[in-house]
Amino acid sequence: MSYQLFYWPSIPGRGEFVRLFMEAAELDYEDIARTDGADALVEDLHAREGIRPFAPPYLVDDEVVIGQTALILLYLSDKEGLGSGDLATDLKLMQLQMDIADLVEEIHGTHHPIAPGLYYADQMDAAYEKAADLRANRLPKYLIHFDNALAANGGPFMLGEQWSHVDTSLFQLMEGLDYAFPTYMAQMQGTWANLEALQAAVPDIEGLAAYLASERRMEFNDDGIFRHYEELDEQ
Amino acid sequence: MSYQLFYWPSIPGRGEFVRLFMEAAELDYEDIARTDGADALVEDLHAREGIRPFAPPYLVDDEVVIGQTALILLYLSDKEGLGSGDLATDLKLMQLQMDIADLVEEIHGTHHPIAPGLYYADQMDAAYEKAADLRANRLPKYLIHFDNALAANGGPFMLGEQWSHVDTSLFQLMEGLDYAFPTYMAQMQGTWANLEALQAAVPDIEGLAAYLASERRMEFNDDGIFRHYEELDEQ
Repeated sequence: MSYQLFYWPSIPGRGEFVRLFMEAAELDYEDIARTDGADALVEDLHAREGIRPFAPPYLVDDEVVIGQTALILLYLSDKEGLGSGDLATDLKLMQLQMDIADLVEEIHGTHHPIAPGLYYADQMDAAYEKAADLRANRLPKYLIHFDNALAANGGPFMLGEQWSHVDTSLFQLMEGLDYAFPTYMAQMQGTWANLEALQAAVPDIEGLAAYLASERRMEFNDDGIFRHYEELDEQ
Repeated sequence: MSYQLFYWPSIPGRGEFVRLFMEAAELDYEDIARTDGADALVEDLHAREGIRPFAPPYLVDDEVVIGQTALILLYLSDKEGLGSGDLATDLKLMQLQMDIADLVEEIHGTHHPIAPGLYYADQMDAAYEKAADLRANRLPKYLIHFDNALAANGGPFMLGEQWSHVDTSLFQLMEGLDYAFPTYMAQMQGTWANLEALQAAVPDIEGLAAYLASERRMEFNDDGIFRHYEELDEQ
């Protein structure tokens, strides 16, 4: 049986982090809501009992049903034998994946600083302030962290020549930042050279090259996590 | 060799989620910064190379060095044989632990909605709005999620009679909410009955009873994640 991925069909969002890994690893999966619509996702989630996912994305693999992007990636990586082969290193990769998830949440917070259930237009003042802090403080702090970690094994990937789930996620992070904050990222070019080298290397992973060239690869849009609002990218 | 926990010595914060599990499991650990001070933590973290923790808390167990509260708990639980014994269930427990971490971050955001590096006094307007949304929407959504999950195995713990890392964390979450939002939590009493039953049952875990009665157990204070500001608890 192939894996089943449940995620909103209209945005790349957090689901794309799972897709990129599955495509790079050439895993067989069904992208349920892109086939059957968002209603199919909502119905499936509501029908689940006991300990269930808090929110999409979630993965179904027979009796395994789990949410949380980083956990899905850990599970798939372990099951498919695509980790480092060393527990201490695999744990470090999972920590990095969780660090990425934290940053993604902070990026989401730049356009929704008050409440995820309110419109952007209703929280623009706070958004402007939060985005300024993200650009000045939070992004440099996180990206230096990832850049230094990449230096440890000589690149281009976190483990060196061998790619892992962390690399496909860092690629998506950098792509998303380029979309959301083009002025800022252009100004900062060269600051995080290891991340830029990773961003250039990831599309050459065999399974991923085919995916990125396909119509399945969704473009960023302003309903997702990475949104381009000029006023949040001002310097 | 005993475990080494690195966390800020002046607040319960995220470190307390790790402590509660280690105390409940009666594990041997050194709480480095509470013995040697915060400077010892900062020096240790800065001296680490390669893939290192982004922020405290982090755990050192020989060659294993990992940050992220939920990951530390997964590692300890697995290593000490304190999981469910079933992979699909252990993954669900980890997902819940990550859901808890997400909520803890949202709670932190009620007093720091704009920037973690700014003072509360400099972001009070946004804090007031974010706290109102947390009380009205986010807390009910998360707590119903945990409460429903608890119902699945009949309680008082997530697995039923057997406690796990999720239970000590949900206990700390409920204690923190009672401290930060006493008016709100009093008004909502009875709404999340399974969580209240868990909160009453966790202190009876043998190792934990001794810890909670000791001077090692730190009280909540207004430098931590759970802070009591009356204006954020208004109805």
